[in-house]
Amino acid sequence: MAETAGGTKDQVLHGGDLDAARAAFSGAPEPWIDLSTGINPWPYPLPAIPDTAWTRLPGRGDEDALRTAAAAYYGAPSAAHTAAAPGSQALIQMLPRLRPPGRVSVLGPTYAEHARAWAAAGHAVRTVGRAEDLDGEVAVIVNPNNPDGRAVGRADLFALAGRFAARGGWLVVDEAFADVAPELSVADAVEWPGLVVLRSFGKFFGLAGVRLGVALAAEPLAAVIRDAFGPWAVPGPTLAIATQAFRDEAWIAATRRRLSAEAAGLDRALAGLGFTVISGTPLYRLASHTFATPIVNALGRAGVLVRRFEDHPEWLRFGLPPDEAAQRRFVSAVQDVVDK
Amino acid sequence: MAETAGGTKDQVLHGGDLDAARAAFSGAPEPWIDLSTGINPWPYPLPAIPDTAWTRLPGRGDEDALRTAAAAYYGAPSAAHTAAAPGSQALIQMLPRLRPPGRVSVLGPTYAEHARAWAAAGHAVRTVGRAEDLDGEVAVIVNPNNPDGRAVGRADLFALAGRFAARGGWLVVDEAFADVAPELSVADAVEWPGLVVLRSFGKFFGLAGVRLGVALAAEPLAAVIRDAFGPWAVPGPTLAIATQAFRDEAWIAATRRRLSAEAAGLDRALAGLGFTVISGTPLYRLASHTFATPIVNALGRAGVLVRRFEDHPEWLRFGLPPDEAAQRRFVSAVQDVVDK
Repeated sequence: MAETAGGTKDQVLHGGDLDAARAAFSGAPEPWIDLSTGINPWPYPLPAIPDTAWTRLPGRGDEDALRTAAAAYYGAPSAAHTAAAPGSQALIQMLPRLRPPGRVSVLGPTYAEHARAWAAAGHAVRTVGRAEDLDGEVAVIVNPNNPDGRAVGRADLFALAGRFAARGGWLVVDEAFADVAPELSVADAVEWPGLVVLRSFGKFFGLAGVRLGVALAAEPLAAVIRDAFGPWAVPGPTLAIATQAFRDEAWIAATRRRLSAEAAGLDRALAGLGFTVISGTPLYRLASHTFATPIVNALGRAGVLVRRFEDHPEWLRFGLPPDEAAQRRFVSAVQDVVDK
Repeated sequence: MAETAGGTKDQVLHGGDLDAARAAFSGAPEPWIDLSTGINPWPYPLPAIPDTAWTRLPGRGDEDALRTAAAAYYGAPSAAHTAAAPGSQALIQMLPRLRPPGRVSVLGPTYAEHARAWAAAGHAVRTVGRAEDLDGEVAVIVNPNNPDGRAVGRADLFALAGRFAARGGWLVVDEAFADVAPELSVADAVEWPGLVVLRSFGKFFGLAGVRLGVALAAEPLAAVIRDAFGPWAVPGPTLAIATQAFRDEAWIAATRRRLSAEAAGLDRALAGLGFTVISGTPLYRLASHTFATPIVNALGRAGVLVRRFEDHPEWLRFGLPPDEAAQRRFVSAVQDVVDK
């Protein structure tokens, strides 16, 4: 899952668009501070990448090693339950093309690319506000949800999965932000027919540019997804980096702790500026403020990009400031508005 | 296009599978010399990659720059006529899912992933031996062909494109090896409705691990292909490397000259070993030998991998040896068989 909570039109509004921000606030100081995404600002340190990862086609052994490491990290039953793709967005694009057109429901509001992708492939898509209203052949839940952190518990997910499996359908659970909420994940339960879990490498590991997503599903469905992407789907350098990162238990544990602590600090800063923190995950916080619009403009003039929402003009979503200087620039720009 | 000329079964035999070669010839010296692919062994020198290419989602501006550079290098009318994907294999996988199931014909024998991908998406696929026998709604031609270098001229391609466009169909021309035969390319003619040209970055530039393919088509169809892949389809480091490489006219010209000279040298070596060189491109040579099977085994024991063909046991395909030591190991192993 990537960054947006816009509508379901062809062009979805995403976070991270610094080009547009620079155009809108042409006098802002460089470099911009991008707080508009939910990407860990303290990335996994890049290992040395062997030359052959760039020059050769990725070997089957390289992809097998990646899938084995991914299964262990996500808690999936085995590598045979995994399919690797160049980004979880690529999985979102492909899944709708692996079923005949049918009825799809999405628990929303949420990451808008799900509804867009299913509709683009000819499915009839409906967004519903409550999990019990999900219907049709395919249901999609982002868990925890972007942007509001709403979580559906495992027991409810299993009940839903059973309901959709009974009709030959799928329950798609996008766990793009579950690295920081592992207790929510149903990756261990993908033996269940029709349960499809999507994971995103780039957010928690802070390496969104490498493009890696992993689908977890029962073995036959995982094989169908792998076949749809064909050979050499994931770049060689990405395989080398992610295989090492998935196995680095010490970095993973330390990063979970750090992100939680930093998010708590961000919440305190937001409260001090008059924001009401609604929810979120340790990778982003959703907050509301009466002066959200002037705050966005003040931040833009200060070269700070945050995520806003057309349908909720008082909402803003904040990623974690990467360092103290960023935190100061952010707080100072908001303070100027609040003090007026 | 990648490396194979096997059948149209689910699992296609590809070149470059060193893992399998190591298992088959367990005592062979390391490192193996891989002559089984058509990848330039003198890769484009990797530029410095900015950290943000790894950590951030690739920006729209980054992809626009890549597509503009690709259009210029391939001679396409504009960036709007291009779609970038993570590998030309990814394009081969996706194209069949962008049309309702129909009748597809492939000019063969050729790279087997085309027939496999169209069949997997529900199309009725037929392989024909002559261009004039191509029929159905979609025709696929690999030009120049892998493995035999067979070329269909531009005039014939335009006539075919017209025939398929008239029925609302596509002519797919896979130009994976046209970097070394630019006079064959129809990339400049993709204004023509229904003409789809596929290009592969990794082979000529020697960077198969970065995963980049480019589709060239009329603007509406190019937009459909871009939409099918969605945002952030190509990794950030790949965009950075390929944009620079596409613009490097001096390297491109020098590499075309070098590959032609090296291929001529390989032909002389093959002739001296009793091979009949059938054809090929400057990136690979197809040759036949009465003793092909013992030669493959002798090469395997010497840690040299070449491409063989189930249906033509006397055929072998050779990529360019990367250096004199590789050339000596290759010649010496073959000589041992020939001298017996």
